[in-house]
Amino acid sequence: MKKLLELIDKKKKICAGIMTGTSVDAVDIAIIEVEGAGLNLRFSLLGFYEHPIDQTLKKLILKNSIKQTSNVEEICKLNFVLPRLYAEALENACHVNNLKITDIDLIGSHGQTIQHLPGKQLLCGYNAQSTLQIGDPSVLAKLTGVVTIGNFRAGDVALGGEGAPLVPFFDYLVFRSETKNRLLLNIGGIANITLIKARATVNEVRAFDVGPGNMLIDFLADRFFNKRYDEDGLIAKKGKLNIALFDAIKDKDNFVEALPPKTTGREHYGENFLDELLEKFPGILPEDWIRTVTYYTAFAIYRNYEKFILPYIKVDELLVSGGGANNKFLFSSLKELFFNLKVKKIKDKKVQADSKEAICFAILANETIAGNPTNIPNVTGALRPTILGEICLP
Amino acid sequence: MKKLLELIDKKKKICAGIMTGTSVDAVDIAIIEVEGAGLNLRFSLLGFYEHPIDQTLKKLILKNSIKQTSNVEEICKLNFVLPRLYAEALENACHVNNLKITDIDLIGSHGQTIQHLPGKQLLCGYNAQSTLQIGDPSVLAKLTGVVTIGNFRAGDVALGGEGAPLVPFFDYLVFRSETKNRLLLNIGGIANITLIKARATVNEVRAFDVGPGNMLIDFLADRFFNKRYDEDGLIAKKGKLNIALFDAIKDKDNFVEALPPKTTGREHYGENFLDELLEKFPGILPEDWIRTVTYYTAFAIYRNYEKFILPYIKVDELLVSGGGANNKFLFSSLKELFFNLKVKKIKDKKVQADSKEAICFAILANETIAGNPTNIPNVTGALRPTILGEICLP
Repeated sequence: MKKLLELIDKKKKICAGIMTGTSVDAVDIAIIEVEGAGLNLRFSLLGFYEHPIDQTLKKLILKNSIKQTSNVEEICKLNFVLPRLYAEALENACHVNNLKITDIDLIGSHGQTIQHLPGKQLLCGYNAQSTLQIGDPSVLAKLTGVVTIGNFRAGDVALGGEGAPLVPFFDYLVFRSETKNRLLLNIGGIANITLIKARATVNEVRAFDVGPGNMLIDFLADRFFNKRYDEDGLIAKKGKLNIALFDAIKDKDNFVEALPPKTTGREHYGENFLDELLEKFPGILPEDWIRTVTYYTAFAIYRNYEKFILPYIKVDELLVSGGGANNKFLFSSLKELFFNLKVKKIKDKKVQADSKEAICFAILANETIAGNPTNIPNVTGALRPTILGEICLP
Repeated sequence: MKKLLELIDKKKKICAGIMTGTSVDAVDIAIIEVEGAGLNLRFSLLGFYEHPIDQTLKKLILKNSIKQTSNVEEICKLNFVLPRLYAEALENACHVNNLKITDIDLIGSHGQTIQHLPGKQLLCGYNAQSTLQIGDPSVLAKLTGVVTIGNFRAGDVALGGEGAPLVPFFDYLVFRSETKNRLLLNIGGIANITLIKARATVNEVRAFDVGPGNMLIDFLADRFFNKRYDEDGLIAKKGKLNIALFDAIKDKDNFVEALPPKTTGREHYGENFLDELLEKFPGILPEDWIRTVTYYTAFAIYRNYEKFILPYIKVDELLVSGGGANNKFLFSSLKELFFNLKVKKIKDKKVQADSKEAICFAILANETIAGNPTNIPNVTGALRPTILGEICLP
């Protein structure tokens, strides 16, 4: 408790953010130096580190993320094994950045989502809206000797929110401008946007998923070319737009036109999304497929802007981040569509796709210690702003 | 955070302890007024309340406590549904005690254990010693508006401990004497003892399970008489001791002679324990069965004392609590066996069996806020004393 009280008063802190995503590819660790909080926050990235996850462990996590193959014994064990992995990863992250674990003042640990059920549903007469991140933060605190904040999503879900997205708060701290209305676009597997008006208060921030990001493109690159993705958009560049296919995708996809706030994922844009169309359009060349789907991805982003933002506010800048920003064809398609706006790629290392979420949870932990709410009710749907995270002493 | 800092400085606090046991019979709530902490602790019980648990919910919890029938989706939902039940129970507990929920300063919530795997085991090369209590404390904090401490066992298990028992710390605060060496005996389903020497430091406390409490007696009362238990020990009183059966139980039971620290439970003394003997001794009268098993229960307690305590320390008092203390035959058997000691039933309402665990977790939450470690390494086997519990802000 003494450690916590000292931490509250400490001016400059070194915080580590730890994140494992639903794809369970790696433990992402960001180490930042931070001063202040809220709109007075200043921080710099000291290091970013990706720690490998053993394939057997990955398989076991994915097995326990699915109703049919999960069980309480393995979930119980994984909840304690993951903090051991995180602690090991943090040791390494410190090492490669010439830090010692004792230099770390605070950890923000997202944990591993193995279930996310934010929709309204009943269980035995009770509201059973819920989410489950494992990798117990108090275990991590004991193993590392560092005050740890974890379980960030539960508090928002408890108050009727979706528990996601939480990154918009971070975007707000970093990109809020005194003069410009900014639209942030992050292109990961799914594409999402965050609108931050000039001089916005936190509750004026809007954020929602808009449609596919790299997910459909990656699926086709794998299927046709056995590639993980279309590097630099070179395949799309070679192909031609097929209007019939474009229209068929548009007709099939009911998410893009849906009213925000909205979220989507692999359950909608996963492997099954294109299956029917692949059967229906057997004669289209692979590069035409990829060009058309890439253009559709850009269109879906624009369409959300056109329908839900343009009528209400004049945006000054579109700032693009995420792996999809490196797809040159996708990026130029966006420039074409958003010809009225300044379209820029975010180059600041602090907020690039790879490290962004890990940095975000380090920042959210710092805000928890400062006593600041970090959910945005207008974004998550929660009843009220609330301080997120559980505080675990070493 | 402001609420937490105010709480740390507050002299008198009203704390609620919330507990659901592995039998999932009821939500037990104790409301106490507390001042100070550690050996300066003073507290009084304001009210104790048992809140019913719906049978469907109980079944679902038990289903998800078993590897074969559990799944991540139901565990995820239950983790959010249980805090709703706890919040409702706390509302009622406040109401019947003429309190408002806003009078409560702090909640200590044990949660619902659905898995406890404290034995050393590996998973993907990592130590997978673990325990799982559901009923997310941060959800409870958001629903009640009260600072909540939960997940008490994880920190001890993270440090190599069994995560149990935690009640000995509470016993230490309440029963430590300046002049007397005290042995506490609690007779629940399982019987356990806690040794607190005169002027003991916390790390001199010893505690371990000694053998069956009411578990075997209740099993026979149900089987032969369709009763939940042998009220006042009246059935045992009518029966006769069967020496052959007594010896057979003694031979079968390897737990009693095992070296402490040790813990046991339904996996050892459950339904299967007597099955073989019931076949082997078909002619014994039901009341003789119950007398013999009751006497064996008393003997097992004495045997642990004789073997593990008597040679090392002169105990002044044996203080008996738990439902088993009401079994007059069991109690008089103990008096016979421990004829050299003063054997007393604990009558203080604050530490009676029913309410004890719930009170204990209210006290443990208060100690967490005071920054005091509450695990006892010599009892749990942990590497070091540590502050237990995760702090959740409303």
